[in-house]
Amino acid sequence: MESLQFSAIHPLDESLLCEAQSRLDQLTKPQGSLGELEEIAKRLFAIYGSRQREIRNKAIFVLAGDHGIVREGVSAYPQEVTRQMLANFVEGGAAISVLAHSLGARLFVADFGVMGERHPQPIADKKVRQSTRNFLYEDAMTQEEALRAIKQGMTWLEELHQKHHFDLIALGEMGIGNSTSSAAMIAALTGESIRSVTGRGTGLNPDLYEKKISVLEQALRARNPRGENPLEVLSKVGGYEIAGLAGLYLEAARLKIPCIIDGLISSAAALCAWSFAPHASHYFFASHLSCEPGHKKVLDCLKLSPLIHAGMRLGEGSGAALAFPILESAWNLFCNMATFESAGVSSKDK
Amino acid sequence: MESLQFSAIHPLDESLLCEAQSRLDQLTKPQGSLGELEEIAKRLFAIYGSRQREIRNKAIFVLAGDHGIVREGVSAYPQEVTRQMLANFVEGGAAISVLAHSLGARLFVADFGVMGERHPQPIADKKVRQSTRNFLYEDAMTQEEALRAIKQGMTWLEELHQKHHFDLIALGEMGIGNSTSSAAMIAALTGESIRSVTGRGTGLNPDLYEKKISVLEQALRARNPRGENPLEVLSKVGGYEIAGLAGLYLEAARLKIPCIIDGLISSAAALCAWSFAPHASHYFFASHLSCEPGHKKVLDCLKLSPLIHAGMRLGEGSGAALAFPILESAWNLFCNMATFESAGVSSKDK
Repeated sequence: MESLQFSAIHPLDESLLCEAQSRLDQLTKPQGSLGELEEIAKRLFAIYGSRQREIRNKAIFVLAGDHGIVREGVSAYPQEVTRQMLANFVEGGAAISVLAHSLGARLFVADFGVMGERHPQPIADKKVRQSTRNFLYEDAMTQEEALRAIKQGMTWLEELHQKHHFDLIALGEMGIGNSTSSAAMIAALTGESIRSVTGRGTGLNPDLYEKKISVLEQALRARNPRGENPLEVLSKVGGYEIAGLAGLYLEAARLKIPCIIDGLISSAAALCAWSFAPHASHYFFASHLSCEPGHKKVLDCLKLSPLIHAGMRLGEGSGAALAFPILESAWNLFCNMATFESAGVSSKDK
Repeated sequence: MESLQFSAIHPLDESLLCEAQSRLDQLTKPQGSLGELEEIAKRLFAIYGSRQREIRNKAIFVLAGDHGIVREGVSAYPQEVTRQMLANFVEGGAAISVLAHSLGARLFVADFGVMGERHPQPIADKKVRQSTRNFLYEDAMTQEEALRAIKQGMTWLEELHQKHHFDLIALGEMGIGNSTSSAAMIAALTGESIRSVTGRGTGLNPDLYEKKISVLEQALRARNPRGENPLEVLSKVGGYEIAGLAGLYLEAARLKIPCIIDGLISSAAALCAWSFAPHASHYFFASHLSCEPGHKKVLDCLKLSPLIHAGMRLGEGSGAALAFPILESAWNLFCNMATFESAGVSSKDK
């Protein structure tokens, strides 16, 4: 089996971070008063390497896959919704379609493992298999399949980037049952308990929530993935769309494309990418704080703090998309504000 | 002395709120999964009264004034910065100028009480007096002056709205010393202790912070404004730009213009407007959570929850401006998403 190479993912250049800090401190505002926006601007500068850059080409990627674990009754929605929603994405009626249009981003949708036949264009065909296996009883996928999904994610982003030259991307997903798979992955990768990382997904009642916890606890005991081996975690309890997303995160870091994390599932994939290549997270930006408790654990692990607290729990990249204007604003402030000197404004009393 | 009339500020129509909820529950997403965005969309629908409305004309208002209390050494910046920043706002170099440009909003700047001569256009001349008095020793302004500032705020918005037909506005300010005045107002209006509502403004060291607390405690004892009388609170410890902002909030509610609250000072003015006319807050939207502890107290009081948590503490309307795309997105989602029926997507398992 081929392995993955991550030597082309570089940490951010410290001297560029310092140069950015020095500029921030000369802008006409009290030092540090833009809070997280200053941290964002610093990292964007270190990624772009120059202020001669506009954030013009934004894109949202939505990867879809189905999950064998839904047969255990862990989801409030029937499995066919994954497939139906793919059509809704490209027809413009889904939340992420509306957000992409209104925020000026391209939307790319791919099937990495949805039940049923292949979809017509413009849905990209990256299907590894029709749904994962039920990981209560067997591994969700083989390691070869996990690797194939990761690599398909990588080449998909690479090809599209050659054509569109992305300045900023957001990564989302669709897959009935994938909050269950993500909770299992996060518990395995962080060592946290199932209960502390598991939420109600998109709408479980208290009984079904307890059912989800119990299924997850049994499944993790049965599969017993080793947290230090992200490929093993992915293949034992992951999903095709999550593996694909991990590939996109890794490729974004290699191509130096800043990349916004959405909610629970998107963050599980980011955590997985970071486990493969810790420097990759230098290119990741948090967006919102989801209702799902595992999401916060992942962001803490990646040392990222969420900008938007709106109690969202939809997925699709919806929270990540909402962060586009905040990152763009941070970048515009950094590039275009006057300095104390240029504006003739007195600085702080000494 | 003339008084203020608020009978033209109406609460939101309950039947429109219900109609909005019913539509939200039919859209292709799990019920409630857009979190706060759903609450925003509901209120916008009840304010606009129809889905046949685009959020096109956005504006940011920045009101400036100086504060006599700065003579007590409660600010890290010299007083002339207020005046210098006014010029920076209209020349395009300030944070709010960059944000207005990049977020597609008009920027209106007014002098409600800045030290020194009147400014040239485009800075609107609403100066009531050059700086408030030092409220450690005497009332910051007379009640007539407070009323004049409120009314000038009202007529300013009314006139501009006749010309520009605003769909959404954000209210910010500039004034060295105005976090001190705002803390005094919030303590008086909410009954909270000075310490629990006072922060470090735009950059006080720990010694100066203790000084600010001590000055505020002495001043509040000396002025003793009655919290149930917002005009008395404004005149005893407020500022001209804060009174002007209160006027804008009240007028926005009367004209049914949804109106975004910025940080501490902007929220003190919103609190004051709400104290005059409780229904006014139906038209207010929270944006970010400032570092200043008093800000959270005000938002709690107004039953609003901040969307953006970025540790900002700049003022100028900067945090409020960042909420524009979130409110616009909430509205676009509400108006443009498909329903389960129209998209042929299965809804939740019963």
